[in-house]
Amino acid sequence: MRRLSFVLVMLASVSLAGEGKWTPQQVLELGPAWVKQQGFSLPLSTLWDEKKGGGLLANAVQLPGCSGSFISPEGLLITNHHCVVGILQEHSTPQANLVKDGFLAKTREDEKPAKAYRLQVPRRFVDVTKEVLAAVPEGADDLTRFKAVEAKQKSLVAACEAQPGTRCTFAAFDGGLFFTMTEFAELTDVRLVYAPPEMVGNYGGETDNWSWPRHTGDFSLLRVYVDGKPYQPAYWFPVSTKGVKPGDAVAVLGYPGVSYRSWLADEMAERRELYFPSAKALAGEWIRIIQDEAAKSPEAGIATADDVRSLLNRRKNSEGQLMGLARGRVLEKQKVSEEGVRAWALKRADQKAALDAYEGLSALMAEKRATWERDFLLDTITWGPRALSWPVTLVRKSTESVKADSDREPGYQQRDLARLKERLERDQSRYSPPVDVRILESWVLRVLQLPATQRLASVEAMFGRYRPADGGAGINRDGLRTLLVRMIAGSKVFVLAERMKMFDESPEQLKARKDPLLDFGMALDAERRELKDRRDRWAGTTLRLRPLWRKAVLAQSGKPVAPDANSTLRVTFGKVQGYSPRDALVAAPQTTLSGMIEKHVGDGDFDAPLKVRDAYAAKKFGRWVDPTLRDVPIDFLSDCDTTGGNSGSPTIDGAGRLVGVNFDRVWENVANDFGYNPVVARNVNADVRYLLWLLEEVEGAPGLLRELKVTAK
Amino acid sequence: MRRLSFVLVMLASVSLAGEGKWTPQQVLELGPAWVKQQGFSLPLSTLWDEKKGGGLLANAVQLPGCSGSFISPEGLLITNHHCVVGILQEHSTPQANLVKDGFLAKTREDEKPAKAYRLQVPRRFVDVTKEVLAAVPEGADDLTRFKAVEAKQKSLVAACEAQPGTRCTFAAFDGGLFFTMTEFAELTDVRLVYAPPEMVGNYGGETDNWSWPRHTGDFSLLRVYVDGKPYQPAYWFPVSTKGVKPGDAVAVLGYPGVSYRSWLADEMAERRELYFPSAKALAGEWIRIIQDEAAKSPEAGIATADDVRSLLNRRKNSEGQLMGLARGRVLEKQKVSEEGVRAWALKRADQKAALDAYEGLSALMAEKRATWERDFLLDTITWGPRALSWPVTLVRKSTESVKADSDREPGYQQRDLARLKERLERDQSRYSPPVDVRILESWVLRVLQLPATQRLASVEAMFGRYRPADGGAGINRDGLRTLLVRMIAGSKVFVLAERMKMFDESPEQLKARKDPLLDFGMALDAERRELKDRRDRWAGTTLRLRPLWRKAVLAQSGKPVAPDANSTLRVTFGKVQGYSPRDALVAAPQTTLSGMIEKHVGDGDFDAPLKVRDAYAAKKFGRWVDPTLRDVPIDFLSDCDTTGGNSGSPTIDGAGRLVGVNFDRVWENVANDFGYNPVVARNVNADVRYLLWLLEEVEGAPGLLRELKVTAK
Repeated sequence: MRRLSFVLVMLASVSLAGEGKWTPQQVLELGPAWVKQQGFSLPLSTLWDEKKGGGLLANAVQLPGCSGSFISPEGLLITNHHCVVGILQEHSTPQANLVKDGFLAKTREDEKPAKAYRLQVPRRFVDVTKEVLAAVPEGADDLTRFKAVEAKQKSLVAACEAQPGTRCTFAAFDGGLFFTMTEFAELTDVRLVYAPPEMVGNYGGETDNWSWPRHTGDFSLLRVYVDGKPYQPAYWFPVSTKGVKPGDAVAVLGYPGVSYRSWLADEMAERRELYFPSAKALAGEWIRIIQDEAAKSPEAGIATADDVRSLLNRRKNSEGQLMGLARGRVLEKQKVSEEGVRAWALKRADQKAALDAYEGLSALMAEKRATWERDFLLDTITWGPRALSWPVTLVRKSTESVKADSDREPGYQQRDLARLKERLERDQSRYSPPVDVRILESWVLRVLQLPATQRLASVEAMFGRYRPADGGAGINRDGLRTLLVRMIAGSKVFVLAERMKMFDESPEQLKARKDPLLDFGMALDAERRELKDRRDRWAGTTLRLRPLWRKAVLAQSGKPVAPDANSTLRVTFGKVQGYSPRDALVAAPQTTLSGMIEKHVGDGDFDAPLKVRDAYAAKKFGRWVDPTLRDVPIDFLSDCDTTGGNSGSPTIDGAGRLVGVNFDRVWENVANDFGYNPVVARNVNADVRYLLWLLEEVEGAPGLLRELKVTAK
Repeated sequence: MRRLSFVLVMLASVSLAGEGKWTPQQVLELGPAWVKQQGFSLPLSTLWDEKKGGGLLANAVQLPGCSGSFISPEGLLITNHHCVVGILQEHSTPQANLVKDGFLAKTREDEKPAKAYRLQVPRRFVDVTKEVLAAVPEGADDLTRFKAVEAKQKSLVAACEAQPGTRCTFAAFDGGLFFTMTEFAELTDVRLVYAPPEMVGNYGGETDNWSWPRHTGDFSLLRVYVDGKPYQPAYWFPVSTKGVKPGDAVAVLGYPGVSYRSWLADEMAERRELYFPSAKALAGEWIRIIQDEAAKSPEAGIATADDVRSLLNRRKNSEGQLMGLARGRVLEKQKVSEEGVRAWALKRADQKAALDAYEGLSALMAEKRATWERDFLLDTITWGPRALSWPVTLVRKSTESVKADSDREPGYQQRDLARLKERLERDQSRYSPPVDVRILESWVLRVLQLPATQRLASVEAMFGRYRPADGGAGINRDGLRTLLVRMIAGSKVFVLAERMKMFDESPEQLKARKDPLLDFGMALDAERRELKDRRDRWAGTTLRLRPLWRKAVLAQSGKPVAPDANSTLRVTFGKVQGYSPRDALVAAPQTTLSGMIEKHVGDGDFDAPLKVRDAYAAKKFGRWVDPTLRDVPIDFLSDCDTTGGNSGSPTIDGAGRLVGVNFDRVWENVANDFGYNPVVARNVNADVRYLLWLLEEVEGAPGLLRELKVTAK
């Protein structure tokens, strides 16, 4: 702890150690001395060279929903196990269950090609703020402002993607303070090299999810090819065989998805008071329904396995956010910080706009609250009953397709359609009729119980008659249920071939089908469009106001402040260290193979593979025993500032060597999306020495070890 | 840790520090030097005087399901909060919710009398082994043996209880190695003096149950009266104001209920392979049913609140037992130990009977397994649907009542009937028709799916027709459901007044009612009697064999071995110490008021009372700040050897002063009923300084503090 306190004092003028998902440009601004203070011996110019617009930091590549990095000059890439489960499923057969047993390619020919797996390697980073702001007409109202920015975004992306093999990402920072475009080489020939057995890669399962101590080898190896030859990346990390010890400097690189630290306390209050409690309650209700049906029928259990996992995750996340917001006193701290900025601004004549923006954002929040419950229920359709989510998706796709591509809603443009159709096809195996009808009923019941000021016309027209006319308690559930069952029976959206046909039909063709669920989907879609229009206007208001407020926040702070995560490339610097999750508990920062074996119970989430247990029993630890732990290391904690999207992010040491792969945050740190709390801000990394031990002592993969320059003793 | 290792070395010849629920007689045998080594400065004769047949250890009194102890010469008694909830409920009104808000009697006149709360103060301990064994006829078969012991037990108890105000308890040790009778003075004028608010006494609720760190003030104060005057106990513990620190010696006294360490590994395997997994699965299914119905109707939720808590508890316990058995390698260790005893016995001609007994007990286990699933389902009736549990109870009561009192089954004798009838009345508020019918259906479905060799004739006759005749899959659930609904509709057992009438009716009267559930209950009762007969015979076999085997175990061990818990008076010696619950986690042995406040979220299980938060915010800590913790202490861990029944047990220091009240075990220690694992064997005590802080700084109770000789600064 002495070392940490020292660092804290040194950096007090800049920011707390660990805090900050920095852009490469900001790392340059923080400067070489700062980077050195973080424990990094690499020259700053190696991390990022402004002239080249690249550097070692650009060896964080983007995978679907994840990050990854190259670790050999021959296109070998490391990411999380949970980022390649789709590839394992794709190659699994009744005879060979790769998800369960894992996979190791003995030769390059053995590598398993992924069917639809796209990898994005960043190539160019462009600030497009000027062009975007120039596109907004003078005196535009808020909706026009939003539409103008959206149109500019589309045209910039389209122009950029006109280059072959290129994918381009537009991003707004802190609500429009600045805008960037990242140009990626899109690589599509991705092959699986190594995935450990599920009970290594996902050891601890749902039980340990968002927890510490963890004993999960959440890593996998891919190889990328171009024109049938191994891809030669511009940058790659050598793998460290020395690993880390408590106090070591590390950095995590990647594409964190979203965070909310630039929000006002008032805006965070909506999450705390409305969103998280509602999401928790709704997920809880649907989990109960699924579990109840799964207990009655194995088919229902199999079909809904993914859905229930996702709902459990949603509920657990909501619970963690609520707990973290309360315990970290996040809103209270944000409020204090805002009051500081306001006091500062009140003394400055040139800051009136910032103060007005603050009031404007608060007023906008009040407007959003007026219809909050109904808007929330409209949003939940996409993770709710397929009897609604499929129709509304089909209807929206159909009506958007009538427009010119550049006028279409993002998500329904030509570039999105292949992925959208794949999802509508894949989801067939996730549909369980007895579950879906009950989730549909649950959703309709909730809408019928909305206050009179927030009713949905579409639901009212179809089901309002089941609410007692005199306003008394009790909905006619038998009547409602009968109608829902009739609508489902009369619909063809559940027939895969029909649904695939519908995907390509015009609005008129869909209407002509007189399908009861499509018809209801159209009515719902009208209300969802109305909501989208309101939200586009709200987004325009935010685009106008938030930058004014954030400029004041930055000016008052007088030091670099990292912007909120927005799926662009970031780096966070930290130290390997434990924490006290709560009174009377101390968590050490490293876990061990003995701890993994100790958790083994032989079923459920703790069923360690026999070959791992055998190697342990035979004391086959090779050279992978950490001298201090006197054990093979498994996972480690650091205080890097991560969030969703950082899955698979490389964790590197001060010399730029790969020491681990980020895969989670601790439970007490789930609410760090709203504020960084140094006491509990810990991300969870799989130690690369666990991977090397598996490859050398358990799997027998000398070729891979040679490629990684980890040569035999 | 150095101190502990030292103690371990010193005692290696006797037993592990902490292990052993010793009888007072065994403490005498262990001797004064041993007691001193445990850190006890009190003379052994103060703890227990053989001549008097009493001592300080006898200041552990028995409450319903709990232990307690006197802490003043004027009948003031301390126990757990959760042991007096019934009294709080009794005195709660819509205006004054004592359960939620707690209660403090400002004067003796304010104390709240408990309606039906019986306290047992031990008066005499008698070894009755000779008389019991003499009662078994020469050459008796196993059923006769059991019946003879049972008859002797009844006559001994009846003779003992002929003394006025006396309750007597018969106990068999380690399956019949020896037998004792404990004579208690039964005191019935018990009044509530102090109970903290629920969110002190049960802070953390289900979430923290069986966990550490805990922040629960699970204590309460009662006063006992005789003839309207405060009872003057023979012994009482002065309260320590100094408290404990890590490494301090402590002892826990009380009436631990049941443990299984004298079982063979084969017998433990039945728990691990059959009982705990089945109980976990069944409780899980019924929890899902209840939660599903509770989500639909608040009435169902209210009625089933206690049931679901009890099922959650049952499931969590089963999970903890399975985890602990696996992680502690309990069966494996027991097997090794048994093999040691067998090897020892094989070398001794006089130990053939022990080896035969071992084989006999194993064979008995095999016999039990042949009908295990069906017998388990018959047992679950008592915690299953009230549509079955009420009828079978009424039927059994009715048929037993025909017999002479001394011939009746224990539980249905005259001495039991008032309590039994009270329960049948009280349970009315726990009955939820929509839940009960589904639990009934679940139970019948499970019975119908038993293998053909284990069918229940009663269920077969009534519901067998719903199983496909061709043995194909799928039960006719609609048909089954219709019949169940019809049976429930045609029954009067759910009508409280009718059920109370049935309680007093003869078998003929019950039959004449032609009540479909009573009729089915009679058929089920016949099978439950047949099971009881088998079990009585099995118990006779165990009575014959287990003592032979245990004598060999004791002889081979060559040192005192504490017998299994059996609700008789025991004492366990230990030290205040933390532990490592698992790899990378260290738990300190003490928690603090700051930790309690940190857990506060304002609802659910963590809603600390305003007056406690106010006192904390105002830093009103008085003299109760522990100098090392620099905080008010809340709970502490020690390695004492406790189990259910030790709730409310006094925890005393080496000078015989009360330092805490035992209230739980840590999660990793749930399986200690099968074996003591020193690494995780920790019991959880409420620190008496937390109580004193509440009384002095929060509640304002100078009179009580004076009585406890805790005089103001």
